[in-house]
Amino acid sequence: MNTKIRWLREKMKLLDLQGMIISNPVNIRYLTGIVAEGVLLITRKENIFLTDGRYVEEVNQILTIDDGIIVYEFKDFSIDEYENFFLFCENVGFEENYVTYATYKEYMHKYKINNLQETEQIIEKQRMIKDEEEIEKITKACEITDNCFAHLREFIKVGQTEKEIALEIEKYFKMNGADGLSFESIVASGKNSSKPHAVPTDKKLELGDVLTIDFGCKYKGYCSDMTRTVFVGYIPEEVKTIYDLVLKNEEQTLDELKEGANVKLLSRMVENDFKLNGYDLIHSLGHGVGLEIHEYPYLNTKNDFCLKDNMVVTDEPGIYIPGKFGVRIEDTVLITKSGCINLTKSDKNYIIVDKVET
Amino acid sequence: MNTKIRWLREKMKLLDLQGMIISNPVNIRYLTGIVAEGVLLITRKENIFLTDGRYVEEVNQILTIDDGIIVYEFKDFSIDEYENFFLFCENVGFEENYVTYATYKEYMHKYKINNLQETEQIIEKQRMIKDEEEIEKITKACEITDNCFAHLREFIKVGQTEKEIALEIEKYFKMNGADGLSFESIVASGKNSSKPHAVPTDKKLELGDVLTIDFGCKYKGYCSDMTRTVFVGYIPEEVKTIYDLVLKNEEQTLDELKEGANVKLLSRMVENDFKLNGYDLIHSLGHGVGLEIHEYPYLNTKNDFCLKDNMVVTDEPGIYIPGKFGVRIEDTVLITKSGCINLTKSDKNYIIVDKVET
Repeated sequence: MNTKIRWLREKMKLLDLQGMIISNPVNIRYLTGIVAEGVLLITRKENIFLTDGRYVEEVNQILTIDDGIIVYEFKDFSIDEYENFFLFCENVGFEENYVTYATYKEYMHKYKINNLQETEQIIEKQRMIKDEEEIEKITKACEITDNCFAHLREFIKVGQTEKEIALEIEKYFKMNGADGLSFESIVASGKNSSKPHAVPTDKKLELGDVLTIDFGCKYKGYCSDMTRTVFVGYIPEEVKTIYDLVLKNEEQTLDELKEGANVKLLSRMVENDFKLNGYDLIHSLGHGVGLEIHEYPYLNTKNDFCLKDNMVVTDEPGIYIPGKFGVRIEDTVLITKSGCINLTKSDKNYIIVDKVET
Repeated sequence: MNTKIRWLREKMKLLDLQGMIISNPVNIRYLTGIVAEGVLLITRKENIFLTDGRYVEEVNQILTIDDGIIVYEFKDFSIDEYENFFLFCENVGFEENYVTYATYKEYMHKYKINNLQETEQIIEKQRMIKDEEEIEKITKACEITDNCFAHLREFIKVGQTEKEIALEIEKYFKMNGADGLSFESIVASGKNSSKPHAVPTDKKLELGDVLTIDFGCKYKGYCSDMTRTVFVGYIPEEVKTIYDLVLKNEEQTLDELKEGANVKLLSRMVENDFKLNGYDLIHSLGHGVGLEIHEYPYLNTKNDFCLKDNMVVTDEPGIYIPGKFGVRIEDTVLITKSGCINLTKSDKNYIIVDKVET
C-alpha cells in the first residue's frame, strides 16, 4: 500500500471510520496517481478503484503492485452487489464538500450504509504538506514559468494585444514540457491592470502601459503561480512609488514565511503598511498551490493559522488604482523550518519591455 | 420580469414551490444573462441576485429594469437576516444535482427553510428548447468553427504536431470573435485517432495519417461542436470503406433528425448498420449543445426520448479500429418541425490536407 493511502487508513481509524468513498478526482489523483473518471473505495480489507471500460488499461499502467489497489469496472457489479463493499461498516466517510446532494442520496441507497459521515476535507488538508516528489514537480512547473517569463521579456512589443500575449504563454507552456496552463492567464495592460482578475482583451499595448502578467503552468499535474508587473516602453513616475511599496511588502513577507508563521499576522502586516500609505489590500495575500491552483492554506486576515514545513504557498500583495493601473507581484514558495525557498526566480526589479531608446 | 424567469415562476407554481435557490452559474446565466459568482433567489415577491462587491457594477450593467432582478451584496445581510428571504414559504426548491451536501446543509441552516425540495433539473431540461437569441448565438459559433476549419485546411502540413494544430485552433477562435474554446480540442493523428477522446500529443503528422479534429468555440456563452476526419497527403485505401460507412450513417441520421424523432431508435439504427458491417458504435450518437458543450438531450440507445422543435443537438457517429485509426464525423444541428438545419456546413467529402502531387 502506498504511503498516502496508509496515512488515510490511519486517519480513518482515528475518526472511527471503517470505510470511505473518495469521489473528488483531485483527491483520487493525490492518493493513487490515477487520472480517470471513477470512485475510490477504501473498504475494510481492500482499496478499490471503480471505473469504466475506457480507463482500465490506462489505470493499470499507472498502478504498481505496491499501490495495493484493485481496479474493477462498474459493470462488473450488479446493483445488488454494491452493498457488499461496506458490509459490517458502521461509519463510512464521504466528501461532503465535493459530492452533490443527489450523489449523497445515491451512495446511501446503493451502498446501503448505516452512517455516511462527513469528513471535513481531511484529504485536502493533508495535501497541504508536500512530499519530495510533489515538491520536485512544483519546482519544475515554476522553472518552466520562469523560462516562459524570460521568453516574454523578449517577445512582448507595443501594438500586441493582451490576448496575443496570453496565447503566447499557453503556446510556450505546451511546447516546453508543461501539461498546459494551471489557470487562464491574466494579461492586463493600462487601466485594465487595475482589475485584479482581468480577462485578456483585444486592447493593444501602448507606450507607458503598466502590464500585469499573472500566469502559471502544470507539470505532471502540479501547478505554479507567478505574477510580474512590467512596464511598456518606459516607467511612468507615478507608478514607481506604488511598485516600490508592493515589492517591499512582497519581500518582507518572503522574509517572514517559514514554519510557525501565522498567516493572519502576515496578512495584517501588509494590510497595515498599505493603509499607512493610503491604500488597501483588497484580496488575500496568498494561497496554497499543488494539484490545484488554489488550495489550502489560504493566507488572509480571517485565517488564524500557522504554516508548516513543506507547505507551498504564494505571496502576492497588490495595489489597484481604479480606472488607472494596478501592481501585483507574486512568487510561489516552499516553506521550510528556517525560512522559505522561492521557487519562482524571475527578476522583480523594474522591468521595461520593448524599451524606448533615449 | 424576463420570459425565462416568468417561465420558471409558472413551473414553480405547478410544483407547489413558493421559492427557489439557484446556484448553478450556467442556470443563472440562462435565466438572467449574469456571468458572476453568486446565488439567485426566487422569493415570493422578488428575484434577488446575491453576489460580492467585485461583481456588482458588472451585473448592474447587464441587467435592465425589465429583468426585474434586484442585486444585493452578501455583506448587506447579517446571518440572522437570511431567514427573511423565504419567510412563509412551505417548499423551497434547490438544485440537488449541483449543490454539494455541505452547501445543502448550509442552505438549510442559513435560510431556515422547512422543506428544501429537489427540483430534478427543471432548468437544465427547459434549456433544451432554444429561443431565437440562443439559436443566433449557436449559429454564429458554428459559423466561426466552419471558418476555422477552412483555415485549417490550408494551415495543416506534414511535420506539424497535434499540439501545434490544437493551439492554432485556439488562436483562431480567440482572434476571430469567439469567447474561446467550447472544450479542449481533439487533434488525433494516425493510430491516436483510434481513441475517441484522444488528447493532442507531440506526435508529428505523417503522410498517410488519418487526422480527426473534434473542436468548437463559444460565442457569447453558447457552444458549437464539429468533427471532421481528414487525410494527410493521400487517402489510404483501407480507410475509405469505413469513412464511407460513417458518413452514410451521419447523413442518414441528419435525414431523420426532426421534431418527434426518437433518439433511441436513431441510435439503434446506426448501431445496427455498424454491426451489419462488423463494427460497433462505442459512444453516444450525439448530445444537446447550448451554454454547455454537453447538455440534455443525450442521443443514445438507453434514452427513450423524442426530439422537439428548437432543440440543438450533435450527430456524431464514429468507428475506431484499435491501434490503427478512427473516423468520426460530427455536425451541430437545429431541430425543426419538418427536419433539421445543419449549422456546421463544412465539407464532408474526402478532404486531403497537404496533398501529395501525383
